[in-house]
Amino acid sequence: MDPHATLLVSCSDRKGIVASLAQLLYGHGANILDADQHTDASAGMFFQRIRFDLSSLSTDRISLEAGIREVAERFGMAWRIAYASHTPRVALFCSKQEHCLYDLLVRHRAGELPCEIALVVSNHAALEGVARHFGVPFHHIPVSDNKPAQEAAVLDLLATQSIDLIVLARYMQILSPAFVARFPSRIINIHHSFLPAFVGARPYHQAHERGVKLIGATSHYVTEELDQGPIIEQAVIRCSHRDHVDELVRKGRDLEKRVLAEAVRLHLQDRILVHSGKTVVFD
Amino acid sequence: MDPHATLLVSCSDRKGIVASLAQLLYGHGANILDADQHTDASAGMFFQRIRFDLSSLSTDRISLEAGIREVAERFGMAWRIAYASHTPRVALFCSKQEHCLYDLLVRHRAGELPCEIALVVSNHAALEGVARHFGVPFHHIPVSDNKPAQEAAVLDLLATQSIDLIVLARYMQILSPAFVARFPSRIINIHHSFLPAFVGARPYHQAHERGVKLIGATSHYVTEELDQGPIIEQAVIRCSHRDHVDELVRKGRDLEKRVLAEAVRLHLQDRILVHSGKTVVFD
Amino acid sequence: MDPHATLLVSCSDRKGIVASLAQLLYGHGANILDADQHTDASAGMFFQRIRFDLSSLSTDRISLEAGIREVAERFGMAWRIAYASHTPRVALFCSKQEHCLYDLLVRHRAGELPCEIALVVSNHAALEGVARHFGVPFHHIPVSDNKPAQEAAVLDLLATQSIDLIVLARYMQILSPAFVARFPSRIINIHHSFLPAFVGARPYHQAHERGVKLIGATSHYVTEELDQGPIIEQAVIRCSHRDHVDELVRKGRDLEKRVLAEAVRLHLQDRILVHSGKTVVFD
Amino acid sequence: MDPHATLLVSCSDRKGIVASLAQLLYGHGANILDADQHTDASAGMFFQRIRFDLSSLSTDRISLEAGIREVAERFGMAWRIAYASHTPRVALFCSKQEHCLYDLLVRHRAGELPCEIALVVSNHAALEGVARHFGVPFHHIPVSDNKPAQEAAVLDLLATQSIDLIVLARYMQILSPAFVARFPSRIINIHHSFLPAFVGARPYHQAHERGVKLIGATSHYVTEELDQGPIIEQAVIRCSHRDHVDELVRKGRDLEKRVLAEAVRLHLQDRILVHSGKTVVFD
Repeated sequence: MDPHATLLVSCSDRKGIVASLAQLLYGHGANILDADQHTDASAGMFFQRIRFDLSSLSTDRISLEAGIREVAERFGMAWRIAYASHTPRVALFCSKQEHCLYDLLVRHRAGELPCEIALVVSNHAALEGVARHFGVPFHHIPVSDNKPAQEAAVLDLLATQSIDLIVLARYMQILSPAFVARFPSRIINIHHSFLPAFVGARPYHQAHERGVKLIGATSHYVTEELDQGPIIEQAVIRCSHRDHVDELVRKGRDLEKRVLAEAVRLHLQDRILVHSGKTVVFD
Repeated sequence: MDPHATLLVSCSDRKGIVASLAQLLYGHGANILDADQHTDASAGMFFQRIRFDLSSLSTDRISLEAGIREVAERFGMAWRIAYASHTPRVALFCSKQEHCLYDLLVRHRAGELPCEIALVVSNHAALEGVARHFGVPFHHIPVSDNKPAQEAAVLDLLATQSIDLIVLARYMQILSPAFVARFPSRIINIHHSFLPAFVGARPYHQAHERGVKLIGATSHYVTEELDQGPIIEQAVIRCSHRDHVDELVRKGRDLEKRVLAEAVRLHLQDRILVHSGKTVVFD
Repeated sequence: MDPHATLLVSCSDRKGIVASLAQLLYGHGANILDADQHTDASAGMFFQRIRFDLSSLSTDRISLEAGIREVAERFGMAWRIAYASHTPRVALFCSKQEHCLYDLLVRHRAGELPCEIALVVSNHAALEGVARHFGVPFHHIPVSDNKPAQEAAVLDLLATQSIDLIVLARYMQILSPAFVARFPSRIINIHHSFLPAFVGARPYHQAHERGVKLIGATSHYVTEELDQGPIIEQAVIRCSHRDHVDELVRKGRDLEKRVLAEAVRLHLQDRILVHSGKTVVFD
Repeated sequence: MDPHATLLVSCSDRKGIVASLAQLLYGHGANILDADQHTDASAGMFFQRIRFDLSSLSTDRISLEAGIREVAERFGMAWRIAYASHTPRVALFCSKQEHCLYDLLVRHRAGELPCEIALVVSNHAALEGVARHFGVPFHHIPVSDNKPAQEAAVLDLLATQSIDLIVLARYMQILSPAFVARFPSRIINIHHSFLPAFVGARPYHQAHERGVKLIGATSHYVTEELDQGPIIEQAVIRCSHRDHVDELVRKGRDLEKRVLAEAVRLHLQDRILVHSGKTVVFD
């Protein structure tokens, strides 16, 4: 068991927040390993991420959390704590394209993603062999013409598997608002454009049509509004008049993989806070 | 006199174009220094840039151009030729922000931009000292409430100065369609966003509002439709939740300078062809 | 059969080369699809890549090659021609690290690499499952204490398999000069630093020690001198004081994959010429 | 007067440091605006930067500093505090190349660099007009054949001007160890390569010779050993076989300007700590 924990807090900015939290942790014997804070002066908001060592805790988790709760109430904080001893359980959703799925599974095996890949869900059977190769259970749940029924089946499956995070690894289905509402800030998608340019379908075609000199990819949390969720990570690559749509697709795959994997890593390391439709990423 | 010339051609793709042009130049004793071509298979278009040495020309320019004209007629080519012995005359337009103006003038003095900076035009007097420091005539032509009259005055000035290229170095006025029509593919603007994201006003505010992780700048030829002209060059820089709008503005200035200067250099080196609202950039 | 071919030529620069080759191809009915040339004025060298369509050839390959040979002799050209109908056969060499191997195999399956992956060779058995998953024969040829014998066994295997290109996908063995001499400009390696910084072993440790703010990766052709071969492609990624060696290794894996795959693609598309220990890459 | 201060501390890592400092500042009524820390686990070192608001200080600076001193002694900390009310005085050193000088002066005027540019020192008279244009005193102190005398004259000048930071804006002289020792971690240089590649003279020539695909620039603090000082910032730009040395020089100028200006900004915002020949940059 890795005796670390990460505390994420946000509240209206006020004097004394940093001191109160630092004092509290010190009082319980927790050694601060990393602390990063951000004050958004225009919004009057305070955000902090504190990672600390639990091995020298002089009390226990229950009294530590009680202490945090007390400070949080005093400052009107939203907070959450993640213990490294709990390994988050992740569901990967895919359709027929395999590059993001392979990439996440290879990275996971290399130890880059601190989670358990609990299962792969797909509306197609195409990638079953990939999941099996990595020893991950594969669930083929086709959409057919009853999408609500399919989503219900998927939700049931996720519930039995205690899923913490859903990663849409080029899953070519739009999730219903009801589904999304069940996993607030816990569904990560990859969009193959530099959002907000080229929202919607066929962004590489749109990019080619417009004649841009860079194409991009954007990972974001999924919200009810398509392609409007809080942006986690973005990257671009140069292109030119020589790049037909096929070439843009090829170059884009590289971006998609990296940008999605980076977002998943940041989420799993508890580095992201969401506020007002935007992310604070402590990297 | 630098005895080089650059030929730019475009036409429907057909067999024999490359051979015909190469043979023609060889026949006149012109040595090809660089040749770059592009075939857009989907549009069925052929584009080529040939830079060649005139010092060993066995005929003269008139017969060379007559020869090119003949080949061009056979293939239905659009073409233009630029002789290095003609130094293009450039007008820089600015308002109150000085970073792009300084940048272009310093680069010009370093020999990066093969042109003569004939004059600086501004709707404000603020940057007169900058122009004077570099020995460039400065013309303050305020807009007041009669914009057509101001544009007419500017056009008169440009005509007397035989201006080949207009560079909008953060010129905070929208040019009328009539003005733009006088300089087709000869007005370069810098837009402070990664177009087509954040068209219109206050792109850094828009970018901050949306919470993007990269901001960009775009240089493009000016057309009648605002922010819709053919894109020449784009670049981006990382930003984060820590960057207030002021920081985005600071980071963006760096991008604006570079992206604008690069577009001007590419234009002055006759590396750009425009087709269907897009650029072919032979770099 | 894809009726294209690519001709790569290099020679001392002289007038008439471009015209002669274009005329020759036109005379045989070959339609030029792409032509890119480079003149290195200081070295007095001419380089060209011409990709052309064979479907309308009015003669045949034998007479076309005879024609090329004639032109080549006149200009003292080195040349080679690659027909798209011949699929190059590639051997991937690896040891225990799997990220580059997976990456190349997934890209190959996506159609990014125009070749046949004929076999995987390794001095360890660790990655046999990976090769098998992609249906590629795996050959475990351990080094033990007789390295010359191991190399001889590998060379025998490659000969029976008609291998055109060897890719060292994090193969942790140094090839002998005799081995290298058998595959001139046909062995591609990935070095996990921005060469020539940090040559030799443990470059990420060296980078961490020096406190650089960017780490890099370099793909190059293998020559007798370690880490001195012609550089094909390089890329970098930002790092900071926060990155321990482990983090540099993680970030570096991403670079290694991309930079190696890019070099392999450029080679397989016949875009690379080597001259004086450097590459000319027509991209 | 801008009522902010920035505290930079470093010491062996121990429990309670963060809490002690936060508590101290809170006790004096100072509101923490930003706090960033770094623990280097392998070196067992703790680093922190705290920026705080002084406007609500319930005591005064003297008692605040006494309090800091007490905490610092307890933990064996090195520390320094910078008040925003003190504007650092900067000396720019240059020779004949003007691009970095212009860039810093334009940025300063735009408010990007929180300092006073007290003077420009040069071993040549060439850039006097540039300094004068920006209203900065220019001191021409030629080297001739008595370099120790020249350095002595420069040191005298700097002493009378209370200079806090020296920026070598392409100053083509090597400073003596004695000179350097007078400004530890207070002389910033720009080297036109991606250090540690291409140390020493003519790095663009070296880069061209080696055939790299990226060129770089490195800003660093000057130490006794040439090109070995702690690296502050680095950046690279793509190049290719098409780039002769002249083109590398042109591309490099862009990098040099940006990388030097960024280092100066980071230093002036008190974001840099130096430890074991490396920098910790809180950006």
